[in-house]
Amino acid sequence: MKAPQPIAIVSLGAATPEDISIRAYGKLQKADEIYCLGEAAHRILAALPEGSALAQRCQILEIPMSSDRTEAISYYEQLATRLMEQQGRGLACSVVTIGDAGTYATVQYLADRLRQAGAKIEIVPGIPYYIAAAAAFGEGLVRQDESLLVLSKVFSSSQLREELSKGVTVVVMKLSRCADIVREVIAEDNYDFIYAEHLGNPDLELLTSDRDTFLSRQPIPYFSLIIIRPSRSISK
Amino acid sequence: MKAPQPIAIVSLGAATPEDISIRAYGKLQKADEIYCLGEAAHRILAALPEGSALAQRCQILEIPMSSDRTEAISYYEQLATRLMEQQGRGLACSVVTIGDAGTYATVQYLADRLRQAGAKIEIVPGIPYYIAAAAAFGEGLVRQDESLLVLSKVFSSSQLREELSKGVTVVVMKLSRCADIVREVIAEDNYDFIYAEHLGNPDLELLTSDRDTFLSRQPIPYFSLIIIRPSRSISK
Repeated sequence: MKAPQPIAIVSLGAATPEDISIRAYGKLQKADEIYCLGEAAHRILAALPEGSALAQRCQILEIPMSSDRTEAISYYEQLATRLMEQQGRGLACSVVTIGDAGTYATVQYLADRLRQAGAKIEIVPGIPYYIAAAAAFGEGLVRQDESLLVLSKVFSSSQLREELSKGVTVVVMKLSRCADIVREVIAEDNYDFIYAEHLGNPDLELLTSDRDTFLSRQPIPYFSLIIIRPSRSISK
Repeated sequence: MKAPQPIAIVSLGAATPEDISIRAYGKLQKADEIYCLGEAAHRILAALPEGSALAQRCQILEIPMSSDRTEAISYYEQLATRLMEQQGRGLACSVVTIGDAGTYATVQYLADRLRQAGAKIEIVPGIPYYIAAAAAFGEGLVRQDESLLVLSKVFSSSQLREELSKGVTVVVMKLSRCADIVREVIAEDNYDFIYAEHLGNPDLELLTSDRDTFLSRQPIPYFSLIIIRPSRSISK
């Protein structure tokens, strides 16, 4: 019987399948069992260099998504139990999530359960979507003394304007939940922005800084984000 | 003569050399010339699987660092000219930086010059240090409706307390520049934190959430950061 191996929470990174780290890819290659959180994670995994071999050891899990987390929590309880059983048998298990596992990924609830139960885990970080979106657009995100604010919920347009007026670069994740507020700010104010839709999905990806293009996107899909900042000259 | 290839601005990622993405690693393997920005970048590059071969094609550049950027800008002008000459000869050139190229990396000034001159470039993103620090500590950074604020300059302890009182998770980069302010907040208030020093450097790395350990670190080195957040129960 093999010694217990840490249960790996593996981040896929963003933008292209090859944005996965060597460390994360190595975990997947050595894994006896791979659990993919959602179809998007599975699609990226299957597009990796040894994707078809990886996909054969992979189960796709669809976590119940709703603001009431009771169902999801119960799902994660069961998954944690299963992972610890397999760990006890000496198997290497990886749970795979898109983007970065520490950045708005629901896999954190699974990590909580595993930690509480005393299981040995390893968090393998990845490139978050907002980092990848700026790079894909060919731009940097923050420099010198600038600040970056990452929001997953926006309450009002004045909240956004206040941060932007301080010179803060603002990222809005889960954009579909507050599309109207962001649309209002982009329509009325003179900010630079990068809008990313389905980043990393070759069939659906849209990356734009054009005001009219952004304003015409209705509805905004779930896989979208925007980076907004006060205009700056390129030579700053 | 080969067609011009994009000049690649390549991020190494953080925490371990294997945190580099497959895409970034592939760029380095195919590069005719590699320019490393700083000794830290070169050390990470040399520790990669094919590091010794990569290091042979690598030049270490030491960019003049001071708040007066005149010298650095002139340095980047010369480097941009050199890179475009090599690109014109059909060579593939990579400029390598630690962490993520879009996150407080001075390589952005080089990218500005190249863009202004109309050169074809490609920004290859990486895992920023604050993302890697949370994962190395075995924790997530943000979840659900939480916000993340990344600062590279802190003006006062009240600025920090105001953000934390709103429930915002605050990352302070370039911590050595505002160590006294952060020390005051950590000493007096009841916040959770993760402090990372020399992350990814096996000889020097320190990763702690212990108050006394952090408060005794004097001076705080240049390669350090802290993640501070209001206490939350693990089961939230």
